[in-house]
Amino acid sequence: MTPVLARLTDRLAASARATASRLSPDVDAWIAERRRRPFESALITLDELTEPDGWGFAPGTGVLGHRSGRFFTVEGMHVTTNQGPVGEWWQPVLVQRDIAILGLIAKEFDGVLHFLLQAKMEPGNVGMVQLSPTVQATPSNYTRVHGGRPSRYVEYFTDPARGRVLVDVMQSEQGAWFHLKRNRNVVVEVRDDVAAHEDFLWLTLGQIGCLLQRPNVVNMDARTVLGCLSAMADAGASGAEVFGEPLGDPPEPGAVHPMTEVMSWLVRRKCEHEMSARLVPLTALPGWRRDTDRIRPEDGAGEFSIASVRVHARTREAPRWKQPLLAPHGPTLAGLVVRSVNGVPHALVRAEALPGYRDTIELGPTVRFPMHAYDRTPPEHRPPFLDHLLTAGDGVRYDTVQSEEGGRFLHAETRYLVVEAGDDFPRRVPPDFSWISLKQLNALQRHGHYLGIEVRSLLLCLAVACPNDRPTRSR
Amino acid sequence: MTPVLARLTDRLAASARATASRLSPDVDAWIAERRRRPFESALITLDELTEPDGWGFAPGTGVLGHRSGRFFTVEGMHVTTNQGPVGEWWQPVLVQRDIAILGLIAKEFDGVLHFLLQAKMEPGNVGMVQLSPTVQATPSNYTRVHGGRPSRYVEYFTDPARGRVLVDVMQSEQGAWFHLKRNRNVVVEVRDDVAAHEDFLWLTLGQIGCLLQRPNVVNMDARTVLGCLSAMADAGASGAEVFGEPLGDPPEPGAVHPMTEVMSWLVRRKCEHEMSARLVPLTALPGWRRDTDRIRPEDGAGEFSIASVRVHARTREAPRWKQPLLAPHGPTLAGLVVRSVNGVPHALVRAEALPGYRDTIELGPTVRFPMHAYDRTPPEHRPPFLDHLLTAGDGVRYDTVQSEEGGRFLHAETRYLVVEAGDDFPRRVPPDFSWISLKQLNALQRHGHYLGIEVRSLLLCLAVACPNDRPTRSR
Repeated sequence: MTPVLARLTDRLAASARATASRLSPDVDAWIAERRRRPFESALITLDELTEPDGWGFAPGTGVLGHRSGRFFTVEGMHVTTNQGPVGEWWQPVLVQRDIAILGLIAKEFDGVLHFLLQAKMEPGNVGMVQLSPTVQATPSNYTRVHGGRPSRYVEYFTDPARGRVLVDVMQSEQGAWFHLKRNRNVVVEVRDDVAAHEDFLWLTLGQIGCLLQRPNVVNMDARTVLGCLSAMADAGASGAEVFGEPLGDPPEPGAVHPMTEVMSWLVRRKCEHEMSARLVPLTALPGWRRDTDRIRPEDGAGEFSIASVRVHARTREAPRWKQPLLAPHGPTLAGLVVRSVNGVPHALVRAEALPGYRDTIELGPTVRFPMHAYDRTPPEHRPPFLDHLLTAGDGVRYDTVQSEEGGRFLHAETRYLVVEAGDDFPRRVPPDFSWISLKQLNALQRHGHYLGIEVRSLLLCLAVACPNDRPTRSR
Repeated sequence: MTPVLARLTDRLAASARATASRLSPDVDAWIAERRRRPFESALITLDELTEPDGWGFAPGTGVLGHRSGRFFTVEGMHVTTNQGPVGEWWQPVLVQRDIAILGLIAKEFDGVLHFLLQAKMEPGNVGMVQLSPTVQATPSNYTRVHGGRPSRYVEYFTDPARGRVLVDVMQSEQGAWFHLKRNRNVVVEVRDDVAAHEDFLWLTLGQIGCLLQRPNVVNMDARTVLGCLSAMADAGASGAEVFGEPLGDPPEPGAVHPMTEVMSWLVRRKCEHEMSARLVPLTALPGWRRDTDRIRPEDGAGEFSIASVRVHARTREAPRWKQPLLAPHGPTLAGLVVRSVNGVPHALVRAEALPGYRDTIELGPTVRFPMHAYDRTPPEHRPPFLDHLLTAGDGVRYDTVQSEEGGRFLHAETRYLVVEAGDDFPRRVPPDFSWISLKQLNALQRHGHYLGIEVRSLLLCLAVACPNDRPTRSR
């Protein structure tokens, strides 16, 4: 480890140890105050959504989009695959081609790195207000298509001269709900003074770690940016081993698989798992119908529907708007099994094919499962390791419900669960699973399209633990 | 550099120094013999292509596909972009969702690494027969959709137990001609005996380097696999610097930009360059018409058309077949400017947006330009640095015409040109260009979708130079 590498790693570690700061003495009161402000997000009918201005269904295809051509669209998707029990299906999907900036400003105060988080209202948020990165803006926002204010602080991420980039990487989002979506995850360290607007707060990594022990406070966008930063630190410290190792006969000391094997396994899974996803008209989408208030699956067993909301917010760039949201029918479990092998921490990840991924497969958690489908799924059809995760006792390392993006999803809650495997856990796993060391996962996270968003959240929660809290079961 | 890393790097270097081998004493005669065999590839009309069996135009969409549903299709593509003088266009495009194995078997003889290359006929090849990897097969080939023989040696790449993987990475192909195409580039080292069939030959890297000085001998698929292997060696030797460096204040010693800046530049280019490519019906594609024998652009200035061939080959898996091919209307220039900065070799690459790329942008050469468009393009509209490349005298480091994939393209020749910049070459370059060190480029090449196929070919040709030959201008 060179001194230069150690420096950022050490600075991040010091920030993670700092669980208090004079810049944010009472985080709870500050958040509570922002949550008391008058925000309104009310479900509306599709007719109200598509009144003459704003959103509308395109003639012929039925694509649901904004008349400006920006923001996002709801379209139909036809999926075929050569794996699994279901070879073909149709579903609505969110399509957003432009790339949002998920940007976090970092700055040192009293020798400790702080990060400028924003109390941001989103219509689909549980609790309405959650902590977002400094900037969470699509070009539609920061080029002001909706006629509101420009996003605050966006110039730190569009002008490279404003600071020093610590990490800047394109990452995917939910491949089951978005078609080819990806966002820019960027952290810029600034040395000049940066005035914190009243909805923004400087927090240390330690403070954020404690907030991550609570449900629905740190939003998805903040988690993914912080995850990329935290991965840089880990991979930076160990970059020599992780990236220098693939050519040798012996594996990375302690790692179950050398990196070349990991990469090769992933490539082989991509070759074997054929999946085609094509956008098709939303009109007459097989298995789906348009009601008064939702686009919903014809049978009751579907996982989500498309709803609409009317929003009134005082602190957003645009004071009033209407929009569709994808509404899951219940919470999802994202469970990760970890274990120490040869003294090296490993996670059991799954090569997960999802129709919205740009290259078919990214690494998912051990189990990702919509829990409302549990009772109606016969035990033999439940995913491997699900019951192991649900019945883990002493092995639980993290167990908290967090929200997915409230600007696109309505109350999409995920139970993030990390469980340490006992000695009885099988070493041999099915071919779409692999034990990969956390350092290897972090090295992969420095590039886009290797790790799905749930794994990135889980790795962050595991890395930035709150020293004051012990994990408890959330349910 | 650890001893383990040094080992493969040294072994590759030793193989590159070996310009002769007792296993392949007379390469020229061997290739000439294979080129003398009776192969036939004849242009046919679209009516002949679409006789009742085999290929056909789908009713309604006009998609040109094989009735088995495999191989590839020719479809329409509608492209919109916010950059450049042309904001919107339509074109035919090749669509192939399944992933080919481009697999090379490596084996040591007399202490020197050899690679098993195949004399492979492809209907679009200049010279009909060129050297391909050991295996160059789509699932359509190796699962025997066409009813022929299975691809020889494919089991070394589908069964991980057959050898040791040296590199295994998914790489893109031509983003202007393919929609989302990518292939598996894999090299497996085998210790057991491997019998070389009469159309296969063991060659050292040094022998291959000499063949790369000649036009149209080493095919595109062989070049891309060898490029990934050669990148592994370079990045492996320097992995610690290249991958460990991004977190520090000072850049990699000698590199113009630290890796974090390189990554950030690329992400920013992706954000700024919006490009949408949608598959649309081939029927009534604006600007294109279907003739008796080709699907061709309505004006004479188009860059390619779609032709068809009837093939008769004795050594391919299927003895007779018909297929469409994309036929460029002239050779392309792929020119790379290199220079040494602080004693470190750098290349001037361009963030090139192409509609068929999975994430919009990959790194292209300094200039990629269809040379038949030169005369009709006014000087002020020619790409930057084009004339610098064409007029370089003493600075030429490599200049040879090579073919692109002869199974999909008809006589698609590219003039690969590497030119060393003189002291008068500008340091400041337009925002879509960047000086990146060769080590950094090789580090990126270990992952998919960073480097386009032309840059990968150019880096290989530069790395595996023939010690016996001096570069000369090819035209």
